[in-house]
This record gives sequence, structure tokens and C-alpha cells, in this order.
Amino acid sequence: MGAIKGNALVGQSGGPTCVINQSLVGVIEEAHRSDAIENLYGALHGVQGILNEDLIDLLKETPKTLKRVARTPSAALGSVRKKVTKNECMRIFEIFQKHNIRYFYYIGGNDSAESANIVNEIAREENFELRVFHIPKTIDNDLLITDHCPGYGSAARFVALAFMGDNFDNRSLKGIKINVVMGRHAGFLTAASRAARRDPEDAPHLIYVPERIFCKEQFLNDVQTVMNKYGRAVISVAEGLHDAEGNPIFSTGETDSHGNVQLSGSGALGDYLSQLVKDNLGKKLRIRSDTFGYLQRSFPGCVSEVDAAEAHMAGRDAVRFSKFDDLDGSIIFKRVGNGKDYEVLTEIVPLKELAKYTKSLDDKYINEAGNDINESYLDYLLPLMGELPHLGKLQEFGVI
Amino acid sequence: MGAIKGNALVGQSGGPTCVINQSLVGVIEEAHRSDAIENLYGALHGVQGILNEDLIDLLKETPKTLKRVARTPSAALGSVRKKVTKNECMRIFEIFQKHNIRYFYYIGGNDSAESANIVNEIAREENFELRVFHIPKTIDNDLLITDHCPGYGSAARFVALAFMGDNFDNRSLKGIKINVVMGRHAGFLTAASRAARRDPEDAPHLIYVPERIFCKEQFLNDVQTVMNKYGRAVISVAEGLHDAEGNPIFSTGETDSHGNVQLSGSGALGDYLSQLVKDNLGKKLRIRSDTFGYLQRSFPGCVSEVDAAEAHMAGRDAVRFSKFDDLDGSIIFKRVGNGKDYEVLTEIVPLKELAKYTKSLDDKYINEAGNDINESYLDYLLPLMGELPHLGKLQEFGVI
Repeated sequence: MGAIKGNALVGQSGGPTCVINQSLVGVIEEAHRSDAIENLYGALHGVQGILNEDLIDLLKETPKTLKRVARTPSAALGSVRKKVTKNECMRIFEIFQKHNIRYFYYIGGNDSAESANIVNEIAREENFELRVFHIPKTIDNDLLITDHCPGYGSAARFVALAFMGDNFDNRSLKGIKINVVMGRHAGFLTAASRAARRDPEDAPHLIYVPERIFCKEQFLNDVQTVMNKYGRAVISVAEGLHDAEGNPIFSTGETDSHGNVQLSGSGALGDYLSQLVKDNLGKKLRIRSDTFGYLQRSFPGCVSEVDAAEAHMAGRDAVRFSKFDDLDGSIIFKRVGNGKDYEVLTEIVPLKELAKYTKSLDDKYINEAGNDINESYLDYLLPLMGELPHLGKLQEFGVI
Repeated sequence: MGAIKGNALVGQSGGPTCVINQSLVGVIEEAHRSDAIENLYGALHGVQGILNEDLIDLLKETPKTLKRVARTPSAALGSVRKKVTKNECMRIFEIFQKHNIRYFYYIGGNDSAESANIVNEIAREENFELRVFHIPKTIDNDLLITDHCPGYGSAARFVALAFMGDNFDNRSLKGIKINVVMGRHAGFLTAASRAARRDPEDAPHLIYVPERIFCKEQFLNDVQTVMNKYGRAVISVAEGLHDAEGNPIFSTGETDSHGNVQLSGSGALGDYLSQLVKDNLGKKLRIRSDTFGYLQRSFPGCVSEVDAAEAHMAGRDAVRFSKFDDLDGSIIFKRVGNGKDYEVLTEIVPLKELAKYTKSLDDKYINEAGNDINESYLDYLLPLMGELPHLGKLQEFGVI
């Protein structure tokens, strides 16, 4: 007995990435080729779109549109942050039944994997014939099991390029520069800044990830040490820096300009750290901070070609796996070659294995002092980002 | 009588751009070909490097190094923010005399043009034989006379791409997004965000430049109107927003988290505006802000090829003009064709004409309500940025 025949539905969920539409287009293109799938519907804004019956016909989209959409950052179907309840699942099955939807592809992070898992488990309980596939994406790169996540490579590329440029900016007008990178709990994206350092004097000179406790005294000592050595310091910090009790650095005992913490999601951590350095290391120091913000996940100018191809493959293979009888789950990447022989293959694992929990940067990648990322991380990271530009410095052939 | 023979010196000054090294390499490459110039020295950190005799030999740099340096953002020689005094000029002439320097190329903005002008005028008073050339650069695009400034096109490209991506991000997870763009007095860079809008529903929905007085009440009305229309709003604001008295918005009557204004250069304006919207339009609104910061002038991933070529030409032509007897001044661009026939030629104008003063965005480019940039600005802007990516939306063929 082969796969069931019926219609399929795809949705996008969670924070967007630069290549989440590659996965969507991978699903659409392969659905065209599939014998099992008769029609493919898109739900606008994820599970919310299913509940609202905001469904569109995706097989009518032209190849030209799909080509452009694939290269367009963020979720073309719209996204949502929502966990489904049991009651909502029952409503979803009614809608699926009405439209004979037997394949459900959900592109998202671990929360989306959890929603997919809930739908899947309740479908089994209710004997509703459904194949559920979770297609991973997240710039945080924090999903379990998979070698890495679609979306991470492009965001990492943005962060690395930003630090490469900022290195030269800071080199030409010296001072202290603090750059805040996305990542509440996992330091993968902050660690990507490490790729900007080619010479020991290159930025970032210090890297702080949320896998370690952030100690203000050590931080100030570190900055002073770097300033003594290079006369400048570019510092990479994760937005999720926290103290020993797990409290975010920028709100532990500090209030922002309006007495509340709502502003802290924007420029507040960088501003706070700048002021901390100024207060302790010297009022006259030139100190600046930038918070990379949403550009990290949506900037269309520097997508990693590797990441784009892999995200497309993840979507395509979810549909390819659909032809196997009674198979569903999360798509994961397995790295089967590294360096010049870098290659990944997709596999499929049970939904519950990716749902709910996340992973952190492996301890072996963080240096002992907790203020840098080890060079070994580059073996893991570099193949994911595509080729970085070759920037240059003058050789400075002596004083005349 | 031809040009005097002697050595030449080049320096870089002011805030870096992505293509300021193109101008430097243009000077170096043309100096190799020049009959008048025997040796070319680079001053580290502009006039400060001359005063310190921190001079390096630039004709020894290899073509491979120069090729890489040209593509590298920021000032390879190091930069400085410094106006020279008469006494310092006298010291500069001593050093020039010692090294037989008869050509001085200074790459920078209007402050650098002023320094060059001071050196030039005092040289004439002192009968010190010297040709002074100012080579323009600034992401602010605010120099007089020239059609536009090297550095602007690449920064404008970054801003446009950032808004193009953010448009899709905001479209997929709706809310209010405020992006703060560099520009204290001139709105050129903020106006570049206008290039991201292809359809009327595209971001930015509102644009505020420092050429107009910023009125909080109008701003809040504008945001509410856009929210009513599209259910979302992406807003482009210049960091130099000010009230009717010329006071910056984020410090008029407001204090930052430490009671001083030093933090305001970072994320504070965006945070302040977010809070303003939240307080007035609704606590439950999803509001975010990003401050693009230094990435606008140093991001190596999205340089405008047009801008890069023109910056190279500006450096090259400064040296080419050196062969004419007793000629010096500022290089400017004259636009001699537009649209598909876009072309610029360099000319030279007296230093004092570019020095000291700056220009603003022409009134004709700002809409009557002062909350948008007119489409006519795109005729001026688009040729400077290089080709932008073609992003796409699903056609959304009806609800099933």
C-alpha cells in the first residue's frame, strides 16, 4: 500500500528568516511533482490561518513568482506565534476534513514543532488520517538533533559581515564599540561574529554568549585589557546576557528611561553597557553601541547561498518523504562531510524529539574565561555562511 | 610651464564610508602613472598623521593588496576628526618641505574640505608651493555643488535593502516598526528608504527628515492613519529629528536612563518614539525599533557598484588634474545623463566653495505634510545605488 492521496497544506510560523520562503517554495515545487498530493493550500499566518480558513491555492502561483518569493526574506504566507489547544485541533481537523487535507507541512522553530506535534498526536488519538511534517527554520540555530537550522547560515553571514565592516570602522576611528546580537538563550548567532576575526588584532576582541554567566567586573577588566593591547575594542554580546540568578543584565537593579522594562528589547542593553564602561573606565573614552535588531533575520542583501539551497532542500524533502507510507516527523540535517567536502543530507525524526526543548552552544566552543569563542567553532560555522568577501589592509611599508 | 615635480601625500578624514578606500586606491594607481609625482606617502589618521610624521610609502603596496583594500569599507589609512590651526599648518609645511611634498590629497567631508582649504590658503600666504585637492566622501550626501557624494550610494543601498527586508518582516508579523537612520542635519540617507516602496502598501509608510520640524501630535496621527489603513506601519526617521526650536526630539524635556544625553546617540531615539506610540496609541500594540547605526557606513556585503566606481574615479581624477599648472580644489560630480543614460563627469571647484557649509534635501522632494518623500526623488536616487534585488509576493489566488 502506498501513500494516501489527498490535499496538502503548508504554513509558516515563528520569527522569520531570510530563507524561510526557500522552504515554502521547495514544498510548492515538489507538490507539483507529487503523485500523492492533489492540491496544495497555503494557510495565511500559520495555524491562525487554518482556524480562520484563510487558505490560498498555492499551485496556481507562477514559476516567476515562486522564483522571486524564494529570494524574498520573511514568511510570504505570513507568520504567527501561537500554540494550538486540543479544542483548536478539533476545529483544525474539521477544516482539514472539509478540504480533504491529508498532509500538513509546518515551517518553523521549536514552538512550531510543538504545535505540529500536538496536531499529530491528537490526529492519531482521533483516528484522523494525517501526515504531519515539521520543516525547521530559526536564526537561533537552537533545535535539537539537527546539525544546524535553515536560516542560521544567512543570519550568521549578516553578523559576520557586520563585524568585518565594523572592525575597519573602529580601526580607523579608535574607541570602544559594543554590538548586541540576537539570541536570548543560545549563543550561536553571537558566536558567528567570530568569523570576522582573521588576524589577532581583528574584531571582535571579546565575545559574550548567554551560555555563561555575565559578570560586570570581569567584563570591565576584559575591556581594559583589550584597550591596553590594541587601543581599541569591539565587543560582541548576546541580547540574552544574564547574571548568576538568570536575570537579564539590563534590568537587574536598573530601570530604563521610563521606569519599565518594555524598552529593553531595543537599544537598551547596548546603551547600558556603554554607560557601564564609561562610568568605570573613563568618561573621555569614545564608546558606541549598535543593536543589530531585525536586520539580522530579514536583510535581503547578503543571503548565504548554502543556507538558501539547504532551506529549499528541507521543504522539498518533506514532500518527498510524504510518499512513504505512514511516515511523518521533523526534517533534520546530518552533516556527512566538512570543509571543502561539506555536505548535508536530510533525515526525518519523530516530531516530539524536536518539539519544546532547545539546545545551547556546546561548551567546547566557548573559551575558559567565557569571553571568546574558540577557533574550532569556525570548522562548524564557515561552511554554512557561503564565501565571505576578502577584505584587506595596507601592508604599511615603514615610516618614510 | 608644466606641473611642478615632487612628492605627494594622501590622507583620509571624517566618518568612514564603504568606498572611501576606492578613492584612496584611485589616487595610488594614478600616482603610479603620473609624471609629476615621484613618491606618494600616506598619512595615518589624516592631518594628525602629518603632524606626528606617521607617514607610510604607498607606492610599495602590491596590486593584490590594493585590489582588496579598495573593496574594504572604512579608511585604510585611519581617519581623524580634526580642524587644523594656523600653527599646525606651519608645522605641516615644515614636514612637507622636509619630504618635498608638493601635492596634498585629502579625502573627506565638508570639515575635511575646510581643513584642506585652510592648508591651501596659508600655503599661498606663505608662498609654499603646494597643490591641494579635496576628494569628497560622505554618507550624508550634504556637500555643496556636487550632484552627490561618493559614499552616499552604498549607504543608501544599505538603508533601502534594510527597509525592503523589514517590509516583509513586518508584513508577516504585523505591528509598528520604527527605524532610525543616520543624518543629523540632512535627510538624504533617510530619504533613501523610499526606494524600498514598490507598492503603496510597502514600507516605509512614513518618512521623517530633519529638514522639517517634527511634531509629536502629527506623528501619532500619521501612525494611527497608517495602522487603520494597513494594520501595520513601518516608519523611517532621521536621527536628527528636532522640534521647532531645533532641539533634538529625544532630549526635549526628556532625560535618558542616566540623566544625561550621552546615550542618545545609540538606541535612545527609537526607544523614545516606541514608548511615545505605546503611551498614546495603545499598550497592547506590537512596537519595535531598530537603529541602523554604524552598519550603514561600513557593511561590506552590499556596496553599490556605481558608488564604488565613482569613488575610484574621484581619487583618480584628483591626481589627473594635478598635471595642470597651478590647479587645485575640490572634486565634484556633474550628472550629464539620467535614468538608463546615467553618467557623471568630474569637475574641479575652488576648495572654499565646498568647505564649511552643507546642503539639505531639496524641499521639492519632501511631501507637503512633511511625512513622506516624493516619488520624484527616485529619479535622483536610484542610479546611485546599483541594481536592487527583485523581491516578490505571492499572488494569493483566492480563498479555497
